[in-house]
Amino acid sequence: MREAMRVSVCRQPKLRYIMENFVFHSPTEFVFGRDTQKDTGKLVAKYGGKRVLLVYGGGSAERSGLIATVKDALDAEGIFHTVLKDIQPNPTDDKVYEGIALCQEHAVDFILAVGGGSVVDTAKAVALGSCYSGDFWDFYAGKEQPQDALPIGVVLTIPAAGSEGSPNSVITKREGHHKISYRCQLTRPKFAIENPELTMTLPPFQTACGIVDMLCHIFERYFSNTPAPLVNAYSEAIMRDIMDRGLTLRLNPDDYEARADIMWAGTLAHNGLCGVGKVEDWASHRIEHEVSAIYDVAHGAGLACIVPAWLKFVAKSNPDMVWRFAINVMSVNPAGLSTEQIIDEGIALLKDFYHDLGLTTSLRELIGKEPDIDLLVKGLEGNMGKTVGGYVTLTMDDCRKIYEEAL
Amino acid sequence: MREAMRVSVCRQPKLRYIMENFVFHSPTEFVFGRDTQKDTGKLVAKYGGKRVLLVYGGGSAERSGLIATVKDALDAEGIFHTVLKDIQPNPTDDKVYEGIALCQEHAVDFILAVGGGSVVDTAKAVALGSCYSGDFWDFYAGKEQPQDALPIGVVLTIPAAGSEGSPNSVITKREGHHKISYRCQLTRPKFAIENPELTMTLPPFQTACGIVDMLCHIFERYFSNTPAPLVNAYSEAIMRDIMDRGLTLRLNPDDYEARADIMWAGTLAHNGLCGVGKVEDWASHRIEHEVSAIYDVAHGAGLACIVPAWLKFVAKSNPDMVWRFAINVMSVNPAGLSTEQIIDEGIALLKDFYHDLGLTTSLRELIGKEPDIDLLVKGLEGNMGKTVGGYVTLTMDDCRKIYEEAL
Repeated sequence: MREAMRVSVCRQPKLRYIMENFVFHSPTEFVFGRDTQKDTGKLVAKYGGKRVLLVYGGGSAERSGLIATVKDALDAEGIFHTVLKDIQPNPTDDKVYEGIALCQEHAVDFILAVGGGSVVDTAKAVALGSCYSGDFWDFYAGKEQPQDALPIGVVLTIPAAGSEGSPNSVITKREGHHKISYRCQLTRPKFAIENPELTMTLPPFQTACGIVDMLCHIFERYFSNTPAPLVNAYSEAIMRDIMDRGLTLRLNPDDYEARADIMWAGTLAHNGLCGVGKVEDWASHRIEHEVSAIYDVAHGAGLACIVPAWLKFVAKSNPDMVWRFAINVMSVNPAGLSTEQIIDEGIALLKDFYHDLGLTTSLRELIGKEPDIDLLVKGLEGNMGKTVGGYVTLTMDDCRKIYEEAL
Repeated sequence: MREAMRVSVCRQPKLRYIMENFVFHSPTEFVFGRDTQKDTGKLVAKYGGKRVLLVYGGGSAERSGLIATVKDALDAEGIFHTVLKDIQPNPTDDKVYEGIALCQEHAVDFILAVGGGSVVDTAKAVALGSCYSGDFWDFYAGKEQPQDALPIGVVLTIPAAGSEGSPNSVITKREGHHKISYRCQLTRPKFAIENPELTMTLPPFQTACGIVDMLCHIFERYFSNTPAPLVNAYSEAIMRDIMDRGLTLRLNPDDYEARADIMWAGTLAHNGLCGVGKVEDWASHRIEHEVSAIYDVAHGAGLACIVPAWLKFVAKSNPDMVWRFAINVMSVNPAGLSTEQIIDEGIALLKDFYHDLGLTTSLRELIGKEPDIDLLVKGLEGNMGKTVGGYVTLTMDDCRKIYEEAL
């Protein structure tokens, strides 16, 4: 196949798809580098914010002085601000309702998220809900299409979810553990401030989970039946760099340039660049979302269990891109190996990488007990219907086998 | 050096720079694929255009039916349009003045460029000049900063200049042959329609010149002293794909996917993605601009002469990135070769590539006579001052040697 011209072994694809038409529109202004958080007030003002809802997680952003810096920057521009704090990982609908009420009470016209994906995703849901007379969950449940959203700005502290440059957000409805990912172009942030120095104090576990998550955002687009030599080539370059730099950070968490690469790669992984013209997959994310919704584990840690099991399963019926991944990303030397051996070695090396990051690839180990696979499959079916995935269409029976493989 | 970890030979850089802070803001909506030119009217309306100046080159866009399609699409939305046509390669100030007069006469509120870089660049200059009471050349001459510009849309027909996604434009002042490149964020197009099918009828020479130009847009950013492992890695992936696909198109000009890759790569080469955090160079472009301004040759054809000579010259004092380029982009096998041999082989392979595209790497052959190097150096000094370049700072004497090497 044409995409594989640069590797040692060439093969014809079983199926020939065509490149899809696409729209790529990533209008976010990315302001990247040291001390850039000091520009927060000017950027909010540039995008018309006069009354801000400041959304953040918990103590670390306060203790580090970041929240004080951001508030000072808003004050310097004469911008009013009120606070929605204590956003937790796997953010839930209750905080969204709280935020919407604050926006109404204070006539907020701009949402500023200071944190990682959970904070940004909460900000997006509040931005949508504040411009809607009904229940914001209507959008996530697919019942309504939003017409408007408040503008959003981001000061990023965790490179992982890519939410700072994406139209996506993931919210969990506490009643019933419904964890739903929603894509809406209205919620692309106006600006995202990315200072790699702010990520240096992240615990190694959080750094690792972020790396797994951003890699998986590329996987969900890379594993596709659409021919895409250019997109595949730059996606592979980004994936290899994330892995190199991820290992660098295990040894030296203060390496500014490695932090910078990881931060920028996390944005490119999910702003759409790596998916242009391709039919995307997203099965791994959906299969994992049930795990983190039900057992409240970190999304990235869940993905480290699900992704290798998913790869092993899909390679049986559609090996081409898994084989290419093994050679071009995991650097398996194909000489003398069968297709199956190349794929097995690629998946083994990916698991080794996750282990090197300090993560487990076993669901049992992750949640500390035997997971209830019936419950996981039931939840997945409730949220997704009969099938998931674009690279291989998976039935709920297939997903059960993937959960079992991930045990 | 860290950037070179993935290649066979590693070396420490002589100098250690740090990554620069950057702003990356590419807000253009790229609408890519078959038949997308039919959406022109809807996109102009989406971005507020009611009275359009339609800018294009010459007969080919009319003969192919593209101009009629675009006019129909505008008419369907009830959008008024008037025409500025006959834009030539190396576009000149006289057409800009003509466009500004048309905008004033017809109260134009949107500029629509249908063509390649020359057309888009003219549209940008008209967009700036229409919002300014003085002479638009004040901006290109560095005398004034623009405060506003009319919005611009693009229907791209030649992948080359990257102007559809960049803030740059190049205009030649006919009096004195001043060819000036100007960067202004106000001139980033609101949308760019890119249909690879529209490029299938380009003559091989124009396809080749476009490929040389877009590659050079990456070179100008890649050859830098800033450490940038991630950016270098995806830049190399894009460069390799451009070369692969460029050769594919020599054999099969109708290959849709190769046309698509070249078109998308041309945009990514110049929207800023490949330069984030880096000190850029731009010496080759500036040295070439004198050639195309004085001898009116195609910019890409001029670059095919200048770039190898520039590489050879700068490698003498700063070999690191040229050596990396030879291995990672030109695929030189470094085993058993000295640094100098690796570099020589890389440059020789790049010249071979230009020859394979049907281009000459000799200035004499390109312009059909002995170029007047005194005149070239004098022009360069007049436009640029005493030095050019970021990877190696070149004096006018150095530039003279590069012109001589390119003979």
